[in-house]
Amino acid sequence: MAAVDVPVGLLGYGTVGAAVHRLLEESADEIERSTGHRLRVTRALVRDIGKERASSPEPGVLTDDFATIRDDPDITVVAEVMGGVEPAGSYVLELLRRGRPVVTANKQLVARRGPELFEAAAAGGVQLRFEASVCAAIPVIKVLREALVVTNVHRVLGIVNGTTNFILSEMESGRSYAEALAEAQRLGYAEADPTDDVEGLDAAAKMAILATVAFGSRVELDAVRTEGISEVDGELVRAARALEMRVKLIGRATLVDGGVDVRVGPAFVDEHHPLAAVEGAFNAVMLQGDAIREITLEGPGAGGLETASAVVADMVSVVGTTGTGFLQNDPVWRQLSPLPAGELASPHYLRLEVEDRAGVLARIAQALAAEEVSVARLVQQPGNGHAILHVITHEASAGRVEAALTAIRALPESRGHAIALPVVSERGVEELGWA
Amino acid sequence: MAAVDVPVGLLGYGTVGAAVHRLLEESADEIERSTGHRLRVTRALVRDIGKERASSPEPGVLTDDFATIRDDPDITVVAEVMGGVEPAGSYVLELLRRGRPVVTANKQLVARRGPELFEAAAAGGVQLRFEASVCAAIPVIKVLREALVVTNVHRVLGIVNGTTNFILSEMESGRSYAEALAEAQRLGYAEADPTDDVEGLDAAAKMAILATVAFGSRVELDAVRTEGISEVDGELVRAARALEMRVKLIGRATLVDGGVDVRVGPAFVDEHHPLAAVEGAFNAVMLQGDAIREITLEGPGAGGLETASAVVADMVSVVGTTGTGFLQNDPVWRQLSPLPAGELASPHYLRLEVEDRAGVLARIAQALAAEEVSVARLVQQPGNGHAILHVITHEASAGRVEAALTAIRALPESRGHAIALPVVSERGVEELGWA
Repeated sequence: MAAVDVPVGLLGYGTVGAAVHRLLEESADEIERSTGHRLRVTRALVRDIGKERASSPEPGVLTDDFATIRDDPDITVVAEVMGGVEPAGSYVLELLRRGRPVVTANKQLVARRGPELFEAAAAGGVQLRFEASVCAAIPVIKVLREALVVTNVHRVLGIVNGTTNFILSEMESGRSYAEALAEAQRLGYAEADPTDDVEGLDAAAKMAILATVAFGSRVELDAVRTEGISEVDGELVRAARALEMRVKLIGRATLVDGGVDVRVGPAFVDEHHPLAAVEGAFNAVMLQGDAIREITLEGPGAGGLETASAVVADMVSVVGTTGTGFLQNDPVWRQLSPLPAGELASPHYLRLEVEDRAGVLARIAQALAAEEVSVARLVQQPGNGHAILHVITHEASAGRVEAALTAIRALPESRGHAIALPVVSERGVEELGWA
Repeated sequence: MAAVDVPVGLLGYGTVGAAVHRLLEESADEIERSTGHRLRVTRALVRDIGKERASSPEPGVLTDDFATIRDDPDITVVAEVMGGVEPAGSYVLELLRRGRPVVTANKQLVARRGPELFEAAAAGGVQLRFEASVCAAIPVIKVLREALVVTNVHRVLGIVNGTTNFILSEMESGRSYAEALAEAQRLGYAEADPTDDVEGLDAAAKMAILATVAFGSRVELDAVRTEGISEVDGELVRAARALEMRVKLIGRATLVDGGVDVRVGPAFVDEHHPLAAVEGAFNAVMLQGDAIREITLEGPGAGGLETASAVVADMVSVVGTTGTGFLQNDPVWRQLSPLPAGELASPHYLRLEVEDRAGVLARIAQALAAEEVSVARLVQQPGNGHAILHVITHEASAGRVEAALTAIRALPESRGHAIALPVVSERGVEELGWA
């Protein structure tokens, strides 16, 4: 098979764009072996052609006019690596509507404008791939859409934000939240304004995309209940450790009885659970389904080169499968209803602080029993004249746990801060003895 | 797009074959959404049509005559799920040569007859897919071939045999090797004759396939240096624990300076390494490469339904991508030379037993230094009048370590059993502080 020359375009030529260009050049032979095609960047859209760049493409490639890419009939596939919702969104829509396949690394775009984008792709009869929009080089979208077609994935558990995982790992080693955040900023894992990461917003966008693909039903970003890690302190990290658990920022997407629940927040993770072992700035996603029990993918969830590698793999897949019926573009094929807020069930960790005198424990036990929350483990710890109770419950709905907590907070003996966090220990594997 | 009816054939109708049939029926809608096709089993080859079966297909599907499948022009893809090298191999070759795509779950067949099979597929102009031949539902072949096209994977580390991982996990909890093996047999993880698993032969076949795909150079089964776990005892497991490591049966495929080294054997795995957390009968494969640093896939590595899910995913991929240039069949495109036996470098664990008197440690240190093996950690433990030394070395070639060990064994003060095992701690991630 003679190699076919395939001109491609880039929207954006920053860290990721330059890395995509480099990988396409360095791996031209590998790509030709896989697909019979040689992909060559002929145009890259930038705002300022004259700007100083670490690496610049050959003269004539950079352009500040989107129309030169849009109107070039030779360009076979375009990679959107400019970021931001606009003008990226308008460009991608225009390309798709004109029948140009697009690969994007833009999670905000996919999470916020998915319906429009996939409709445009369907109208144009072309592929829109978005592997790089979730967890960089970890091929979780490909695995969900192509390897787990018949698996009925019903739960996705993920550590999908490396910055917060790094901060929590550092806190495990005794650093304070502020110290850990400063270290993350020093290493370039966290932005000067870390809000998107530490408040869980970045993770929420990724979980919205993952849940949409896994369940085939659109999950809007606003529907993801999101909590960050800024309330996590050293005491909580130590309490988890004493219970043989770790505090992690966990994304959980659950399909139960036809209802969908997607949330992001701190959780206690049993130390035997695969997600407990994910350290530093790494990401991991566990997929649980009928035929596979569970599959976990772990790797670097960010980085220019890692993201570029996913962009290039998608470009290769587009070029390699164009003209076949494989993979309709929109992963959405049904409309599931959201699970009512309180219904999601899991074991929970409770931290309660009470006066240390006779009868208090009985009243707490009563408050829990009234909501049918049963206790699996309880550790009592003395603390400045009070008793701090660390409780692990059996599986209970979030609503019941919250109701019990409200009742406990109202007890006259209640002191200090009472909190509840979900516990991640459920696995798809019965023989390991998980609940 | 109207659904296209696609008749498919099965070679074999045991646990996996029946599960493939069930998944194809239960997931017909999902498959149609992905590919536009409805896959329907019209023929399944068995030895004895009259045999009692847990689940039987509709009348007329079972056949004991291979020719009815081979000569049926409507059958679009055939799944080989009968196992064994013959007659499975001849059937698959015949089908491929006649232009019939094949999906196989047969690791012995792929590992032993790969060249013939892929040549036949190329001659027939059709795909041969083999995801299910390695680690059941874990989509490591798809990820290597389709997601990591441009990654230059240079190392594959794997726990690719669930039986031995289960036995070693049980030994961690204090059971003896014999007790753990008996438990594995009771649970159906180990065969009555466990040789294939415990001697590493099953793992070797999987590593040969993984190395061939990862490096694009044929690795013959005979070229895999293979050692099992039957020599692992409680003392070794405890020694690992004391050094904050775990004993695992590790497959390692390494590409260094254009040379390939593939081996299977017990190793010490640092407890912070992702593979250390793989418990029970699970499998995990870590891929290290230039653009991705490292990606780890973990999941159940065996099971009828899990294997069937990979077979069906491959059938779906074949049907979905037929007619495109994507994925030449033979992953092999170059001929790399084997790395000389002693050259593979890693940190090592040494267990030495010596007379407990002055000057002995100096002589051991000298023997190590003579081979340029440097000591990272050393723990001395008294044992029946002797001293047992547990040593972790810095990175050193297997040949140098073996030479030092030979010199140490020859010392007059040497007593008991002196062994060396590789230590797995190298990661693709510098910021985690690994060597």
